[in-house]
Amino acid sequence: MTTTQLAAAPGARMEAEMRQQPEVLAALVERWPALTAQVAALTDGVPPLGVAFLARGSSDHAALLGRYAVELGTGLPTCLVAPSVATAYGRVPEGFRGWLLVALSQSGRTPEIVDLAHRYAAAGARVIAVTNDGGSALADAAHLSIALEAGPEVAVPATKTVTGQLLAVLAVASGLAPEGPGGLTRTQAGELPQAVARVLADAEGAERAARLLAEHDRLAVVGRGACYPAALESALKLQETTGLMAHGFSTADFRHGPIAVCGPDAPALLLAGSGPADADTLDLRSTLAARRAPTLLAGVEPEADLSWPALGHLGECVPATVRGQQLALATARRLGIDPDQPAGLNKVTMTN
Amino acid sequence: MTTTQLAAAPGARMEAEMRQQPEVLAALVERWPALTAQVAALTDGVPPLGVAFLARGSSDHAALLGRYAVELGTGLPTCLVAPSVATAYGRVPEGFRGWLLVALSQSGRTPEIVDLAHRYAAAGARVIAVTNDGGSALADAAHLSIALEAGPEVAVPATKTVTGQLLAVLAVASGLAPEGPGGLTRTQAGELPQAVARVLADAEGAERAARLLAEHDRLAVVGRGACYPAALESALKLQETTGLMAHGFSTADFRHGPIAVCGPDAPALLLAGSGPADADTLDLRSTLAARRAPTLLAGVEPEADLSWPALGHLGECVPATVRGQQLALATARRLGIDPDQPAGLNKVTMTN
Repeated sequence: MTTTQLAAAPGARMEAEMRQQPEVLAALVERWPALTAQVAALTDGVPPLGVAFLARGSSDHAALLGRYAVELGTGLPTCLVAPSVATAYGRVPEGFRGWLLVALSQSGRTPEIVDLAHRYAAAGARVIAVTNDGGSALADAAHLSIALEAGPEVAVPATKTVTGQLLAVLAVASGLAPEGPGGLTRTQAGELPQAVARVLADAEGAERAARLLAEHDRLAVVGRGACYPAALESALKLQETTGLMAHGFSTADFRHGPIAVCGPDAPALLLAGSGPADADTLDLRSTLAARRAPTLLAGVEPEADLSWPALGHLGECVPATVRGQQLALATARRLGIDPDQPAGLNKVTMTN
Repeated sequence: MTTTQLAAAPGARMEAEMRQQPEVLAALVERWPALTAQVAALTDGVPPLGVAFLARGSSDHAALLGRYAVELGTGLPTCLVAPSVATAYGRVPEGFRGWLLVALSQSGRTPEIVDLAHRYAAAGARVIAVTNDGGSALADAAHLSIALEAGPEVAVPATKTVTGQLLAVLAVASGLAPEGPGGLTRTQAGELPQAVARVLADAEGAERAARLLAEHDRLAVVGRGACYPAALESALKLQETTGLMAHGFSTADFRHGPIAVCGPDAPALLLAGSGPADADTLDLRSTLAARRAPTLLAGVEPEADLSWPALGHLGECVPATVRGQQLALATARRLGIDPDQPAGLNKVTMTN
């Protein structure tokens, strides 16, 4: 797998890396039985007492999906670590013996995440590292390293490593609860490369939607369940690449207050797949129409502006996320911004 | 305690309820020894295995502060419950025997929160309800009810019940770990009514800041540690009352991507108190200046546009939150919007 080295057109690298996603995902699907078996073996057949996820930025959105998937599969306590409790306030974690910590960093080099992985291991947690570099410091700190093997990612907006992480956390959930509704069977995982390929082959909807977004400076991105991490990730991708004030919301929260931000000049993007939480998101359309807010629909409905195939499982977060990438790329290009290297942003998160 | 019944001026009810905050907080401080003793008694001297918080909307921001405070005080696993895992996907929680669940709802009547409190109790968790109505369904579902006793709250934007909840979760942290540093001593708690009174007595900064915000349609609100829940709450309050696309960010996340949304037309509000995480937020000023983004500073620095007294503990979240309320009220008035009853919003969150 190679990355375009001399990318002249704006976003050429981001686009090339987006196009590698079916291949990256298919390679993870190939490893599915081994990955889920490794996760199961790590806990020695004894379910953990809880599962914590540790991440920053777009990795944090994969953590959020992982949290849903593990909790749906196992019912166990799951949490997203607040890094500042340890790094800024110096609190030593306690009570994590018997827990599993899933630490995510695309580079595997974010100092804060590496440091915390060591602290949680010292507190008794078994650590799984999900990185794109199996030789990274984070992978070294872990009891089990899941390397995405996605190849180098050069564009600043992370794309193939994010969808790789999404699939990896679903593999963790599957390893912990093979019968659960949280993880995926290998067959279900195997549907994802094809679903993403279909999304990538159809860029027209994103082009049309980008015409709308390029005329606005604000956007609410709304989803629930599997679509909530995709909403947060799509908002972040739009922020990074276009400077649009895109704000990701959970449907349930959005309805009861923040919807006040939408109106004729402030559109909404609704992400709604085929899960039990998605009807709630579709219901927002009438309220948004009454507010005269331009509304884009992404998902499995026939009338969707941006569609993805109905899969009936949490894996829908993956094509939903790719729709957000497409929208960010198309909007940046329309605005004349090069998303490969947005002003003032760096590839590796250096929070200490 | 009474609430103005005939409120003619826009935001008269919201303002009246904001002004009751020193009194509401002082009454909670009076009950501090009893509250912390009740929390300690609930766990029978045996530390819980973990502490989960359950909330929606502005109550969720109190949950976030509670999560920091409990984790700082105890080091134990803490988590914010994702309600949709149970309510939309139907997953029964497991593995919560020995856990403490802190459920927050201002009305105590949000059906989703009441339902989930029952489910977690059935799964073995001890439940603390934090509500403004000790006779509510949520209070009935709990092993321990902490009633805010803030008096009726009529304005749609919650104010005195939010700061009451903030103090209540700090009391929970103090009850679980009397030696802190997550909770407050009674003396520290006792500083808060006075700090809030000082903030309320000084509305000039908010008036000036509102002139800036009223000229923009976007705002990034940024904070870390104790100021992060205040940043999220201030953004929500601005969304609800003014329709401004205000987006709350953690400083650490903001720096590495979302800062791209700020520029000459998109200002930032930085919240920075006297805690160890706050220097990181102040550091953003140079980057924002380089982006030519108008920047408002709230906090303990002498040059702050909106100040609060340095307290040296997590309680600073309370005056920071009141600064956000003031800003929302002043901006709404400047825009000619009545924040007491924003179009299309209801008081009780009815998510099912």
